[in-house]
Amino acid sequence: MLRLSRFLPSTSRRVTELHNALWSGSLTVQHALSTSAADENRSGRKFASYTVFKGKAALSMHPILPNFSKLDTGGSRVNKNGSVMLTFFPAVGQRKYDYSKKLLFALSPTEVGSLISLGPAESCEFFHDPSMKSSHEGQVKKSLSITPVGNDSGYFLNIAVLNNVQKTTERLSLPITKAEFAVIRTTLSFALPHILGWDQVLINHHDPPSPSARVERRSHPDMEWDR
Amino acid sequence: MLRLSRFLPSTSRRVTELHNALWSGSLTVQHALSTSAADENRSGRKFASYTVFKGKAALSMHPILPNFSKLDTGGSRVNKNGSVMLTFFPAVGQRKYDYSKKLLFALSPTEVGSLISLGPAESCEFFHDPSMKSSHEGQVKKSLSITPVGNDSGYFLNIAVLNNVQKTTERLSLPITKAEFAVIRTTLSFALPHILGWDQVLINHHDPPSPSARVERRSHPDMEWDR
Amino acid sequence: MLRLSRFLPSTSRRVTELHNALWSGSLTVQHALSTSAADENRSGRKFASYTVFKGKAALSMHPILPNFSKLDTGGSRVNKNGSVMLTFFPAVGQRKYDYSKKLLFALSPTEVGSLISLGPAESCEFFHDPSMKSSHEGQVKKSLSITPVGNDSGYFLNIAVLNNVQKTTERLSLPITKAEFAVIRTTLSFALPHILGWDQVLINHHDPPSPSARVERRSHPDMEWDR
Amino acid sequence: MLRLSRFLPSTSRRVTELHNALWSGSLTVQHALSTSAADENRSGRKFASYTVFKGKAALSMHPILPNFSKLDTGGSRVNKNGSVMLTFFPAVGQRKYDYSKKLLFALSPTEVGSLISLGPAESCEFFHDPSMKSSHEGQVKKSLSITPVGNDSGYFLNIAVLNNVQKTTERLSLPITKAEFAVIRTTLSFALPHILGWDQVLINHHDPPSPSARVERRSHPDMEWDR
Repeated sequence: MLRLSRFLPSTSRRVTELHNALWSGSLTVQHALSTSAADENRSGRKFASYTVFKGKAALSMHPILPNFSKLDTGGSRVNKNGSVMLTFFPAVGQRKYDYSKKLLFALSPTEVGSLISLGPAESCEFFHDPSMKSSHEGQVKKSLSITPVGNDSGYFLNIAVLNNVQKTTERLSLPITKAEFAVIRTTLSFALPHILGWDQVLINHHDPPSPSARVERRSHPDMEWDR
Repeated sequence: MLRLSRFLPSTSRRVTELHNALWSGSLTVQHALSTSAADENRSGRKFASYTVFKGKAALSMHPILPNFSKLDTGGSRVNKNGSVMLTFFPAVGQRKYDYSKKLLFALSPTEVGSLISLGPAESCEFFHDPSMKSSHEGQVKKSLSITPVGNDSGYFLNIAVLNNVQKTTERLSLPITKAEFAVIRTTLSFALPHILGWDQVLINHHDPPSPSARVERRSHPDMEWDR
Repeated sequence: MLRLSRFLPSTSRRVTELHNALWSGSLTVQHALSTSAADENRSGRKFASYTVFKGKAALSMHPILPNFSKLDTGGSRVNKNGSVMLTFFPAVGQRKYDYSKKLLFALSPTEVGSLISLGPAESCEFFHDPSMKSSHEGQVKKSLSITPVGNDSGYFLNIAVLNNVQKTTERLSLPITKAEFAVIRTTLSFALPHILGWDQVLINHHDPPSPSARVERRSHPDMEWDR
Repeated sequence: MLRLSRFLPSTSRRVTELHNALWSGSLTVQHALSTSAADENRSGRKFASYTVFKGKAALSMHPILPNFSKLDTGGSRVNKNGSVMLTFFPAVGQRKYDYSKKLLFALSPTEVGSLISLGPAESCEFFHDPSMKSSHEGQVKKSLSITPVGNDSGYFLNIAVLNNVQKTTERLSLPITKAEFAVIRTTLSFALPHILGWDQVLINHHDPPSPSARVERRSHPDMEWDR
């Protein structure tokens, strides 16, 4: 297995030769994960993605967990939803990609919902300002559009990042086949309850069951009663 | 992260300023969870929801686990199905919501089934009496209707709570986009086997496998035989 | 919560009064599970079902786990797939059901596949001989048919059990709404990988990851090579 | 339960009598798993498949886990995606199958996506060279085609293995009913996030939640900011 991170320490090697990795069908862009996931240095964390390589650009997707904060009662609750991070990076030659020129776009739960419910002839577009409501608001504007290729054959994904300070606009675009979109739709549908933290509420709950002697009669749905 | 509960101790602060929380896209209405989930004081519990904020009202959804009771044999079985709690609360100004005026509606498993199978042009309506078959029957009547906005663009959700004692009717209504409904459909489909307890039957079973020497020949499906 | 098993010891009480349990929306036919699941006496087991009550009959569904047998190598493999058990029992009065007259039908994985892929205007029928290939073959013949009600409004389920020894035929039939079928489709889709044992292959695998120094270069997909 | 491996030690017994096993509907081709899964000798591993037997051939499917490699930070990441292995083996008489003549085809994640999104009238075809980019490239060429039977009644699966060294071409073909394809689609959709390793990122993460006192205010989505 090719370890891409070996190619990345020096600038000249940033243009990564993915030739060998590409044909294997099992490529993981390892450095991509290590830079985009800010918390990799937490031991025990696991990383996985889904990556597609096309003529002009590549796209890698990986899920980001929600953040729980502790309650005084000993329980915990989501204080920040997770997301699905899209990482685009350009081709700079035949089967060569420059990961240092990556563009990031983090899909919120509702944007994930938009993507997984997209009909074959439908399109959608999302706009992000990573610094919204801070003093840097408006400095960087991002957009992601997903438009049908036609004939139920997949979609074009286009990302644009406008930097008003550096007066630059970077764009990357790549086609996604129907099969690749099925992988994206299935993995994002799987990820959605998890990035909202619902799995942690519904699974791994270790309350002992009530002893049958003390099963009380209750109307249903009892919690509605308080209103 | 804004902790809403800090704003709620005094009455004057009940009108919660959600302005800052709203734009972040990662809002969790924490007090909402702590009041609607009666059992929060059990240590170790986790809480998660999916919340959408609209012009006139907000809607938060969170799953409620089934209840298991112990059997004499040492096993346990579901004695009360879980549900998905919908919490509606009104806007009282631009991006300000009054959580103290919340209206609750707990979806049963079959109501969840109705919602996740709703076609783009279909509607459904549910009626609840939280005190049915008790001495308070008929005092409070609730209804929830889900009707299409049109053009496959989402649904209107309308809740009405009629209190025959206080002679009041409270109503809240908000639109849900197609993307938001996709999140609701996906998370509710995920939650459904869990609120019925099927995951606990199918997962985390630690019976040791039978030793191969004692694998007996059995007709299939053997348990049908007793009838 | 009403515990039905209290009503069942004597014959006269077999006609169970489900009136109170029915409206609660949280009914679990507990005795149903304890008799149909032959292995309830294994401590630690959990039981859950989905039950619908109609005018002439009720239907309860619960999943049955696959059976693993141990290998000499220390691993284990499925030697018998799980199933989804359908339990039909007749109404014998208004909201009264006689569980002692239950009829059982265990859906195989492929029958589950047939059910979850059923179009709104399609029907299917399954035939079982619980004693097939034994000396009792042909003594009991069972059939289950699922036919559309029409207008995408749900299905009729009909079970017939022909006993050639006792010269009896028992039949039960009930309608399932579209919402109830959505619950069945969703829970059966959830159960399917589990009754085949795929979750146990794909989850809870605790192999330590290979140390990165020893990650060898391998062609993909390597296991195809041996043929 | 019939254990097929008992029939396999001597060549003459390789033609396995599956008659008894077939009708039971609970057959697991145990030897199939033990030979195709090269790593069975790792203790603790579990094996499960989904197998269909037809007039001229049988098909068994089982999932293969991704491979994680350890990071210096203590975490780990996928260095090789998992797959779903298809094993075809020919019938050599009525209900007799010769497992020694098996043909293997490992579906990549994107090929799984192609299969699960296949419309009722659509077809797809995959080509593999198990030795691509090695010195043996081109010696063996494999193809798998999936074509509709017509009338939304299922698909034909055709595998061909061309060996340029031995100058042989082996072909196997079998029909899959709509119900069987629903099982395949459901189990492959379940397996897909797992063969990409997403479940291990999203589940079983045991980070303690941040203490609420230290929940910092962060813009969303913060990780986009670094680009």
